[in-house]
Amino acid sequence: TVNGQALWHDLVTTAAFGGTEKGGVCRLALTDEDRQVRAWFEQTCTALGCTVTYDSMGNQFARRPGTHDDLPPIMMGSHLDTQVTGGRFDGILGVLGGIAVLRALHDAGVTTKHALEVVNWTNEEGARFTPPMLASGVFGGAFTEEFAGSRADGAGITLRQELERGGFVGTEPCGQHPAAAYFELHIEQGPVLEAEDRTIGVVTGVQGMRWYEVVVRGRSAHAGTTPMPMRKDALLAAARMIEQVNAVAQAHAPEGLSTIGIITALPASSNVVPREVRFTVDLRNPSEPVLQTMEEDFLQRMQACALENDVQVTVTPTWNSPAVHFEPRCIASVKESTEELGYSMRDIVSGAGHDAVYVSRVVPTAMIFVPCLHGISHNEAESATPEDVTAGSNVLLNAVLKADHL
Amino acid sequence: TVNGQALWHDLVTTAAFGGTEKGGVCRLALTDEDRQVRAWFEQTCTALGCTVTYDSMGNQFARRPGTHDDLPPIMMGSHLDTQVTGGRFDGILGVLGGIAVLRALHDAGVTTKHALEVVNWTNEEGARFTPPMLASGVFGGAFTEEFAGSRADGAGITLRQELERGGFVGTEPCGQHPAAAYFELHIEQGPVLEAEDRTIGVVTGVQGMRWYEVVVRGRSAHAGTTPMPMRKDALLAAARMIEQVNAVAQAHAPEGLSTIGIITALPASSNVVPREVRFTVDLRNPSEPVLQTMEEDFLQRMQACALENDVQVTVTPTWNSPAVHFEPRCIASVKESTEELGYSMRDIVSGAGHDAVYVSRVVPTAMIFVPCLHGISHNEAESATPEDVTAGSNVLLNAVLKADHL
Ligand SMILES: NC(=O)NCCC(=O)O
Ligand SMILES: NC(=O)NCCC(=O)O
Repeated sequence: TVNGQALWHDLVTTAAFGGTEKGGVCRLALTDEDRQVRAWFEQTCTALGCTVTYDSMGNQFARRPGTHDDLPPIMMGSHLDTQVTGGRFDGILGVLGGIAVLRALHDAGVTTKHALEVVNWTNEEGARFTPPMLASGVFGGAFTEEFAGSRADGAGITLRQELERGGFVGTEPCGQHPAAAYFELHIEQGPVLEAEDRTIGVVTGVQGMRWYEVVVRGRSAHAGTTPMPMRKDALLAAARMIEQVNAVAQAHAPEGLSTIGIITALPASSNVVPREVRFTVDLRNPSEPVLQTMEEDFLQRMQACALENDVQVTVTPTWNSPAVHFEPRCIASVKESTEELGYSMRDIVSGAGHDAVYVSRVVPTAMIFVPCLHGISHNEAESATPEDVTAGSNVLLNAVLKADHL
Repeated sequence: TVNGQALWHDLVTTAAFGGTEKGGVCRLALTDEDRQVRAWFEQTCTALGCTVTYDSMGNQFARRPGTHDDLPPIMMGSHLDTQVTGGRFDGILGVLGGIAVLRALHDAGVTTKHALEVVNWTNEEGARFTPPMLASGVFGGAFTEEFAGSRADGAGITLRQELERGGFVGTEPCGQHPAAAYFELHIEQGPVLEAEDRTIGVVTGVQGMRWYEVVVRGRSAHAGTTPMPMRKDALLAAARMIEQVNAVAQAHAPEGLSTIGIITALPASSNVVPREVRFTVDLRNPSEPVLQTMEEDFLQRMQACALENDVQVTVTPTWNSPAVHFEPRCIASVKESTEELGYSMRDIVSGAGHDAVYVSRVVPTAMIFVPCLHGISHNEAESATPEDVTAGSNVLLNAVLKADHL
């Protein structure tokens, strides 16, 4: 089993890179804070006898040699970047759990057959460069490196520029990294395990998710002189669209989800009726056909709403991550390890996207969930217990050892 | 009568300072563009024999001496700042119409009894520094100079800093400028004159207007894992509040107006349910008691909506400009001048705030409206005809001459 205290110590240490007053973390991908945590990762893994390399997307690989180095490595990992007002566990636990596995083997003097690798995937959150899971997406063949590198943040700085600034561009082309299996430990980010008082979620797959950008165009007008019936108010129309986006999820309850996270209105003056409103839409469902129906419902509602409110609307799809089913043998390794360790568990479908989604396209993959407080995530109040994160890391260790013996 | 061609030429010249591709103007108060137009104003008026001075709020006064300089001057004017996507006439016509009057007297070799002054009031729009009519508000005693000077733009730069940067701080304390009368020529910014095919609006007063900032607080949460019933979505709640703000105006149709011009949501990430939304509200009505009722209705609806949506709401009043009635003798001068010149006219209440609102607290005041295309204003497409702006300036000239003889 892993050293729970050392693991918790690592969680506290990493939380300081971009730590916020409210106890959360603001460590957007490839910012100075992210560079600090990447340096920490490299030092820590090197001290455990690993070699740390980068691929061309800045994904960080810490490799612990095995006895049979002709075999492809077994990978563990997740991401160290966070949301703007993110927590201390989302992504981080998957990387630090991997380090805890390396440390356990190091301390026990055990060498596996396969080399073991812990990966820190670049820009998982999509909070700085959209869409999420960008670098693991290149690894899995979902995005080209050109597309990913050209994604720009709000200030117009591209991911490629930031990779170069950090010195994170490795010589290995992203995706040309062989692996025998990939295991990702993560907090659930939802309320199910806590509500049912289970320690481990055996993740069988990830729901489908689609993103859109909606642009509503009306006509700017003077707030004091334009009679209400003569207005083409892009914001009032957008407000009604927001209600309709919510209705799409309600129509597919309880599994359908819809979220509007970003909204802007122009020209943004108190006494001017807005001429243009932009907002993002995130639709999710575990079933691809149901998600497809949700999309059609959503598009119809936007058009109907635009018509009723005498404005123009355009809806542009910006991301589509289809529902994923993980590899049965990897899932079984997680389940058997949990049983052997005696933790309570249940099968679960992930509501959040993870690097495992894209990695699973090219490597046999499974995930391990542990509970988080009140299911709260993407929030500075995100929390998990030392017992649960240690349990999850123990399952990770044993699943990796099982895979090593296959 | 005034030289319509020279006036139109001035309108074209000033439209170039901050001119936009779409034929509008972006000349926010005290920006470099505003500094350019202020320099132009000074040169142009000096060439017409005026002395140009500033008061402590950067209001620009161009003075043409009279024969009896012991008498207080008669003032004309408006503002040269614009909205972000503003037009070429809003405010500008009132200043250039004043210059057209000076030019007519200059060309005819006429000297009035009273000195005549054209004023360019600082920061009328409120687009850069809120609230609107800030410097004329100090002049009229509605705001202290400390309050006005400390108002900051989106980048945190204060009005006081920008006045100093421009060298616009005069020695005369704002408000200590005597005046016998004030006449402000302006485009209507609404559809009434055009619809009734009248050339001149005799403005009898200005409706009441109140501004608020609304802050909605929910809880940020993960878009993929948080079941819809467990969310406290600040943006969904805000969308419902926007609908309710609209309902306040509808409940007081046709005169009641409500507008939401600015909205922001935090933390502004596509896969995070917003925890906080802020928006502005602008309520207007020509009747103060009805406006008071609208305010109460609005506050109640916000509280009810917050309760229903399980979020917190706070509403902060940020501006209150009560309904204004102009001075009967000044109104009569405008009406008689219009009659004598043979233009069609009607009495009208202004829907927009104007510098005249606050100036009227300390100086006998009236306003003259001319039609604008489709009533569109606070929009780059704002337009007015050479004939109408010349007619308005002729009325201004004759109203000033009448006031001079009183
Ligand atoms: N795990 C996680 O929060 N990933 C971000 C991608 C998503 O929105 O689900
Ligand atoms: N005239 C004008 O547009 N003034 C701005 C103040 C207002 O919002 O009415």
